Amino acid sequence: MSWRDGYIAVDWGSTNRRAYSVNAEGRVVAKLEDAKGVLSVEPGGFDRAADEIRAALGDHAMLISGMAGSNRGWREAPYVGCPADAEALARAICWIKVGRVGIVPGVCQRDPIADVMRGEEVQALGAVAAGLAPPDGLICLPGTHAKWIAMRGGRIDTFRTRMTGELFAVLRDHSILSAQLESAVAADDAFAAGVADALGGADLLASLFGIRARHLLGAGRSDASYASGLLIGSDVRAAIADRAPGETVALVGAPALCALYAAALGHADRVGEVIDGDAAFLAGIRRITELL
Amino acid sequence: MSWRDGYIAVDWGSTNRRAYSVNAEGRVVAKLEDAKGVLSVEPGGFDRAADEIRAALGDHAMLISGMAGSNRGWREAPYVGCPADAEALARAICWIKVGRVGIVPGVCQRDPIADVMRGEEVQALGAVAAGLAPPDGLICLPGTHAKWIAMRGGRIDTFRTRMTGELFAVLRDHSILSAQLESAVAADDAFAAGVADALGGADLLASLFGIRARHLLGAGRSDASYASGLLIGSDVRAAIADRAPGETVALVGAPALCALYAAALGHADRVGEVIDGDAAFLAGIRRITELL
Repeated sequence: MSWRDGYIAVDWGSTNRRAYSVNAEGRVVAKLEDAKGVLSVEPGGFDRAADEIRAALGDHAMLISGMAGSNRGWREAPYVGCPADAEALARAICWIKVGRVGIVPGVCQRDPIADVMRGEEVQALGAVAAGLAPPDGLICLPGTHAKWIAMRGGRIDTFRTRMTGELFAVLRDHSILSAQLESAVAADDAFAAGVADALGGADLLASLFGIRARHLLGAGRSDASYASGLLIGSDVRAAIADRAPGETVALVGAPALCALYAAALGHADRVGEVIDGDAAFLAGIRRITELL
Repeated sequence: MSWRDGYIAVDWGSTNRRAYSVNAEGRVVAKLEDAKGVLSVEPGGFDRAADEIRAALGDHAMLISGMAGSNRGWREAPYVGCPADAEALARAICWIKVGRVGIVPGVCQRDPIADVMRGEEVQALGAVAAGLAPPDGLICLPGTHAKWIAMRGGRIDTFRTRMTGELFAVLRDHSILSAQLESAVAADDAFAAGVADALGGADLLASLFGIRARHLLGAGRSDASYASGLLIGSDVRAAIADRAPGETVALVGAPALCALYAAALGHADRVGEVIDGDAAFLAGIRRITELL
């Protein structure tokens, strides 16, 4: 039995997992999605957790990406360095059972800023393999820790992670700005003002306190949208600093968040094009299986 | 009975209050310091809370600065706009009892970033009045919300508040960096590295995630010191961007924190000179009483 006969592709993150049964023609014939992320599996419980997947989707060979390969996961899969392509990932698969159950390693870099990812590398390589993103371009996966991956010749050349989403969350949940950041964020005028301030090189630490001060001075505005615009704008500004003007950026992630990033990119004279993250993931795993 | 006969000066903050009995010669003859900050006084309880001060320090006229003048305090004292001097503050005193119990207003500005302060204005004007800081210079009060006050001709010309301390605290207490930021911060090599990165224009959101990544990649360093250096360095960099090289900055605040700011200023070829915050406060209140 080979990978050409079909397999199970698993995107196993910290809080969720998604598993797909892919047939010999490369089509998804069944899918399992649940909240059994890595953090909810007790140490020693991963064999059984994988059995559940096989019970639902059939007894096929299984390729897994994401936090299952972290030190809190099934088994630690050492990072592959940049630049990284599908061949490098395939060579470095951490086999739980050789040829049958493998974990795709994450990717790391050490300079100029240390950085790591687990899972996004498969989506990025898959996006290019599936023609969803160009082989030389920027792919952005916004979220708690926003990843920006620079592809070059179809390989992951460099990447950068920013704590954009987490910073917004801790400020909303635990700072003096809490009450003001409770409302919903939208790509409204306040968001645009935040993006504009950030793209203009805003003094971030001061602009954040300015949200509080503006409120005390009675100047109404959608503070949550402004703060989001300020942080996403700061993220975008740093991400595009060394990139060509007018570039299209592929966006992978939750639709509402991708829409905010697309709006921010638009203010920076870039085009954000939302692509299908599931399709990118599946194409990435497929590309790796072709090398096995 | 006039202010020349002596008075009580109260620095009434959110969590603490300090009250000083000053005699006709301007000397402090008694002091009360306790945890009865504004947030611990129930609405309607300020008259009694002030009586406690008089019971301890004598029945003198009383001048109060700080959060007692906020919307959560004794009575809201509307902000005075920049530029602001002692005369402007004296004119705008919010009198609880005319000529006997007054609250010195805070200072605000609206452009380019909204900003407010309550209490620091008295210290800044007092620092200059007492000759502790020059009439044209920068005064920094580091803390949860670090204030940088630009003095010009002895007046508060402009100022800027950054959420430096609060950002460090929420990252330490509530983010993925928590475990790494638990240790003590010192002006060590890691702190210097953080300051250097910030002064070099570091990508702040990425450098923060880099602390996590560096840890996962096994590169040991004092992460708390590095993070503190990164944030204080970002604060300093923005604060001195439009200031003359080589300038001395007067530092007012907790000694350990002032030492970190002095170290960061040193890396930026500035001199941070710690001055006595109590003396600055007392000189500021004295200057205002002279105008009454």
